[in-house]
Amino acid sequence: MNLDLSSKEKVVDAAVKLFNTHGFDGTSVREIANEAGVNVSLISYYFHGKKGLLEYLMSSFLEGFLGEIEQIYQHIEEIPVKDSLIKMIDNLLGYQQDNYQVARFVHREITIDSTLIREVMSSYFMKERFYLHEILNHGMKRKEFNRLSAPFVCMQLRNLITAPFLNPQYLQEVYQLAPYDPYFMKNYKKLVYAWVENTLISTKYVPEKLNLPVASVGTGL
Amino acid sequence: MNLDLSSKEKVVDAAVKLFNTHGFDGTSVREIANEAGVNVSLISYYFHGKKGLLEYLMSSFLEGFLGEIEQIYQHIEEIPVKDSLIKMIDNLLGYQQDNYQVARFVHREITIDSTLIREVMSSYFMKERFYLHEILNHGMKRKEFNRLSAPFVCMQLRNLITAPFLNPQYLQEVYQLAPYDPYFMKNYKKLVYAWVENTLISTKYVPEKLNLPVASVGTGL
Repeated sequence: MNLDLSSKEKVVDAAVKLFNTHGFDGTSVREIANEAGVNVSLISYYFHGKKGLLEYLMSSFLEGFLGEIEQIYQHIEEIPVKDSLIKMIDNLLGYQQDNYQVARFVHREITIDSTLIREVMSSYFMKERFYLHEILNHGMKRKEFNRLSAPFVCMQLRNLITAPFLNPQYLQEVYQLAPYDPYFMKNYKKLVYAWVENTLISTKYVPEKLNLPVASVGTGL
Repeated sequence: MNLDLSSKEKVVDAAVKLFNTHGFDGTSVREIANEAGVNVSLISYYFHGKKGLLEYLMSSFLEGFLGEIEQIYQHIEEIPVKDSLIKMIDNLLGYQQDNYQVARFVHREITIDSTLIREVMSSYFMKERFYLHEILNHGMKRKEFNRLSAPFVCMQLRNLITAPFLNPQYLQEVYQLAPYDPYFMKNYKKLVYAWVENTLISTKYVPEKLNLPVASVGTGL
């Protein structure tokens, strides 16, 4: 077989497009092959079928996402923690903008309660949690950040960073905005920065202590 | 046919359960009938098939959700706007707790880019946007709230209110928490209240003016 590099990319692009309009279960391997203009056997060759394609999409996207967080974590001692956090937010939003169709698919797919998703994802998410908690705890230790419950703050931060990419449909229908639009993103970033300032740094109003079993740092890996 | 009331409920419960594990497109009418323990013809009888069932689930859930917002809006003059907003947050979180399986399904389903979803939802979401903007603008007019961009604030508020129900899988896997757990919810509410206080009321840090074409109030209906 004469396999040019781009036929793999064609399959990925076609799959993401179809998954975003018909859902993963609503899309057949044959439809993906047709949309990509390739022979159906290529999908077996590259990905060992549809489940393999799902795993490929999720792990390649999430490894990149995690990579952005890891990079910030590795240089955490060098600059104020707030600056590290802002840089991480920018990088994660930029990464999703560069991959917004896959971002949308992956963020939605992890809301499904399936064994496959749980298997593929649990190790990834535990690593992500570890780094996010470490970054936050570092800011608290240095007294740059308010003392807050790491799980709830990380949950909220992650939610802010991913929301426009999980639900572009809502943005589009209700506000005629798109997450890949630089104009939207410029303003959305201001909102996330304000959240960082108001929640983590300003001491005007800190919620009363959250009665949560705060996960000890380091158990996630 | 001897149609007891509960067979309709059985179909709804079975459908939501299957949709949440296999997705809408990955579930057949026959599987729903089997799971519910009813004859497959009943699904046609009640809902005119699977698409009708989707419409029923979405519109009944979202009408209830909208109803909670409308009720707050109707009594907006009577108490401080902040108290109205807190009450709305409590009611919407409570409503989703009472219907958490359907909440999960609906919140996820609206992230799909399909004509059906667009048709079913656009009028609903425009109404919701109208009420949320009105409540927020009311608080700004009364000088209770900071002057902020209504679209971005409403987006963020909606996101905070729905996030735990859209992604319980993440909560469960990463933090062993569940959105229907009263203990989780008690603490989650504190976080949303803190957001209200820090974003809308505290004047410690207000983001620089967002350069957004703010939708004029009232155009949504």
